[in-house]
Formats: sequence, C-alpha cells, structure tokens
Amino acid sequence: MILPTIGFIGLGIMGRPMARHILQAGYPLVVHSRSRPPIEALLALGAREAPTPAQVGTQCQVVITCLPDDETVRRVWLTGDDPALPAMTTDTIAIDMGTTSPSLTRELAQYAQSLGVAFLDAPVTGGQWGAESATLTIMVGGDPNAYERALPLFQTMGKKVVYVGESGKGQQMKLANQIAVAVGMLAVAESLLFAEQAGLDLNLTVETLSTGAAGSWAMENLGKRIAQGDFQPGFMVQLLQKDLHILLNEARQTATPLLGSALVHQLYTHLERTGEGRLGTQALIQALRRLSGEGA
Amino acid sequence: MILPTIGFIGLGIMGRPMARHILQAGYPLVVHSRSRPPIEALLALGAREAPTPAQVGTQCQVVITCLPDDETVRRVWLTGDDPALPAMTTDTIAIDMGTTSPSLTRELAQYAQSLGVAFLDAPVTGGQWGAESATLTIMVGGDPNAYERALPLFQTMGKKVVYVGESGKGQQMKLANQIAVAVGMLAVAESLLFAEQAGLDLNLTVETLSTGAAGSWAMENLGKRIAQGDFQPGFMVQLLQKDLHILLNEARQTATPLLGSALVHQLYTHLERTGEGRLGTQALIQALRRLSGEGA
Repeated sequence: MILPTIGFIGLGIMGRPMARHILQAGYPLVVHSRSRPPIEALLALGAREAPTPAQVGTQCQVVITCLPDDETVRRVWLTGDDPALPAMTTDTIAIDMGTTSPSLTRELAQYAQSLGVAFLDAPVTGGQWGAESATLTIMVGGDPNAYERALPLFQTMGKKVVYVGESGKGQQMKLANQIAVAVGMLAVAESLLFAEQAGLDLNLTVETLSTGAAGSWAMENLGKRIAQGDFQPGFMVQLLQKDLHILLNEARQTATPLLGSALVHQLYTHLERTGEGRLGTQALIQALRRLSGEGA
Repeated sequence: MILPTIGFIGLGIMGRPMARHILQAGYPLVVHSRSRPPIEALLALGAREAPTPAQVGTQCQVVITCLPDDETVRRVWLTGDDPALPAMTTDTIAIDMGTTSPSLTRELAQYAQSLGVAFLDAPVTGGQWGAESATLTIMVGGDPNAYERALPLFQTMGKKVVYVGESGKGQQMKLANQIAVAVGMLAVAESLLFAEQAGLDLNLTVETLSTGAAGSWAMENLGKRIAQGDFQPGFMVQLLQKDLHILLNEARQTATPLLGSALVHQLYTHLERTGEGRLGTQALIQALRRLSGEGA
C-alpha cells in the first residue's frame, strides 16, 4: 500500500514528537519550521524539508499544523507569505492540531471548502509526555468523511481519537477540557493551601484526598508536586493562559459567564506578572499563598 | 476476647449503617437517637437502648456521635440535659464522627482531657454508600494512643483509616477534602455548561474529559449524572453547604481567603433559596445555567 505524503508545519515541544510518530509509521513526511534543530532531527530520520508553507501544501495529500497561536495559524494557512491552504489541491486534507479559536477554525474551514479541501480541527490533550508516547487524546471536528480518511494518521499520534462534530467542535471540546483543568487546579491548590495553613502534612493530605470524592488527576499528579515543592512544568502557566484567553473571548461572544475560569485566569495573570509564567500550572498555589500573606 | 461496649448517638443516614457494622462485628452496642425507626432496627439486631446521652456515657467504654451540626454536638456531649461527656469514666474514649468545627472539637477535647477521657475527631468521607458498604475514609485527630485503641473499631466502618495529628486535625483534613469536592464540582459544572452551550453532546464530553488531565471522580460520576439530567443526591447540596459554612468560618479566624470555596458556597446559596437544597451537589450546573439565561 502506498501511503499519502504528510506535511507537518510547527515543530515545537508537541509537534516534533508527533511528526516523528508519523514518519516512523511509514508515511513520507515533508516538514517546515522556523527553527532548525527539530528540522535537522527529522531530516536525519528520513523526512524532506520544504522552504515555505505553500511548498508543503503543493507536495502533500495531508497538511498538519501544530502552531502556538491564532495569529500564526492564520498566517501560515492563509494570510502570510506563501501560505499553505491556497497551494493545496482538491480532495486533500488540512488539519490544525493546535488550540485555536473556534471562530478562526470555522473561517479557515469555509475557505478550504471553497478550494475543495477538507479542514479538520484536531486539538490534543496529554501534554509533552502524551506527544512523546503517542498517547494523546485527539478531539476532531469537521467533515466526517475526511475524519475517517485521516483516522489512521491520528492513531499514530494518539491513544483516544474522538470525532466530536462539525468544524470548530473539536476546538470547543478542547476548551471545555481546559475549563475542567483550570478550575480543577484551583480545587487542588485551594485545598492544599488550607491544609498547610492548618498544619497538615501535605503528602498525607494528597494521599488521603486522592481516592475519594475529592480525587482527580490533578490532585494525584500536581497535588503531589505541590507537596514536594516542585513547580517544574508538566503544562506551563503561559500555555494554559493562552487557552483561557481563547476560551473567555469565545464565551464573551455568546455572553456566557464563566466565573471559575475567569477567576483562575486572573490568578495566573499574577504569576505572569511576577515572571513565573513558565512554571507548571500547579504554581497556582503560589498566588494563593501570597494572597494569604505568605512570602512564598 | 471480651470486646468493649460501644455507644452510638445519632442514627441518621450515615450513623445507622455505621452502628450496624459495629454491632455485626460483635461489639455490644448501646444506642440513643431522637428518631424511633433506626432504634427499632438496631434493637432487632441485638443492640440495647439508653434513654439519655448520659446513660450511654455511663454504660460504654467508647462513645461515638454522628450528629448533624455544631449545636447538636455541643448539646449532646456537654451542655444539654444529661450530656454524655461528664458521665464517662476515666480511660474511656469519646469519638465525634460527624463534621464539626475544629474549634469546637478542640474545646470538647480539652474538657474531656480534664476528665481523663480521650476525645477523637474522626470525620468521614464516602457518603451514604460508603457507610452502607463499610468503605468510608476516616480521618482521625487526637491522642495517638486512643487512636491505636480505637483502630479496630474504625476498621469495622471504613476501608481507609488515617491518623492525621492532634485534636482538630481530623476535622481540618475533612474541610480540605470538602474544598476539593466543592471547587472540583465547579470545574465539572462550568466545563459542561460551556460544552452544552457549544452544542457538544454531554455524554461524549464527560467520556472524553474523564481520562486525561481534566479527569476526576466528580467528572466521571457526577458529570455523568448531569449528562443524564439526574439531580438525585449522592451528596446533598444542604449538607455540603453546612460543611462550607464551617470551613469559611474557620478560614475567617485565620484570615485565609478562599476564593473558590466562597464562590461555590454562594452559588449553592442560590439553590437553597430556590428550594433545591436537597438535590445532589451536581445541581450546581442549574445555578450556572440560570446565570447564562437558561430557564433550567
């Protein structure tokens, strides 16, 4: 069987291992990135390089982006120099695997449709570790036939691939996920703040609270890091902030009040101001400690 | 081996099955309650009845209470007619298994000490189902020797018994637990509110979000109930409100701001006002829906 040629644009901490899994599954891979080291690493494994997004679009049956923000997504696909979408041919598939505004997603999907190109939104959860180990959860919106065609490709990168609905719905599911992540982090941080002020042992608290109705992935994993004073990122404050910014803009458009998410967004804004935006999201407890007058 | 005689005061939805487990483990049991049906049920299984808390105190080596609020706790142990504590003899153990203010706990423990009685605070989590199936988590504060002596008794009611520290620390651990429960419920409800407003299928959302970084006991169990429109209690709003009230009073004494817990407390206050205090805690989403202008 001849596998289609895949293009991959955006080789950051997520994109790089994701592209590698595609290549190692046997797909011909064409890559493009502004930074050299990940390009070199993938060329060494057999990928080819294209000098512009348009060249990726011309050469591939499927083009994937994994980019940091809306502005870059818009530029690479549509409005920059030599963008990818206008260069793609009929019946190819464009896939955005970053976290992007649902409204921008729908705009790009509509333009793609006018070219006969299917545009899928397929944001992921699972973080760097999930990307490395190909255990991501991938939430896909867009044309269901294109989804079926792309499914084997998604399966090289993820363990759980879910078709969510029409264009933009993958991004909306990702935002629902980030609400639970952000407010769930507040649940853990506020609980442990109270516990430490009461003089309770934090390791014992995390262990006691992990198994019952208070239990969560965050309590077990990030609560434990808080107890150990470890603020290294799993997932960085500034990346969650980018997602919460998209979320709150999106919710504003439908006049949906999100009391918890907005509160957590503001607390993390404090950490960005103090230069702690590159810490892990569990550093939320530092903001709470300062509110309680501790000089942490 | 001759087992000590146990007294049990307060036979509500939690106390009744807990007392039954003690009886069925072979301990002689003396019960006291204001309501007849649970008394009758336990008498039929071999318990004896005492007409006052003081009579329970006189007859037993260990006295347990499982009562609804601080006022009742104070009255039954100390300030009511024929209270239990002054009737207890040296070297016996008094145990409060309800959720009680840490400050009241310390006050009762101090008085008990003056009588040569050990007072343990041993609040539980796991709800009615945990009480029925003897799988409660029990968090114990107070004298460590008394804890060791009472441990076999706790093990008849709970699966996980944790010694937390000196008097009051069991109650503080319980409050830390309730913070994670309450704010974690907001994480689930706000996430599902956004999802339904985005037109996502709620069952699919709960399933997708349950396994990763957004996952929690609440998402899996109460998120599923929300998706099914089921607001029957696991744990009632008004009972969580009682605990949050204790929590916020306690935090006020140390000037500890608890932004998330206070927010959730206020949202649940809305549900109490609308006569929904006896629904399960997952009804939080109803308050959020109304804030979004839905007539739910």
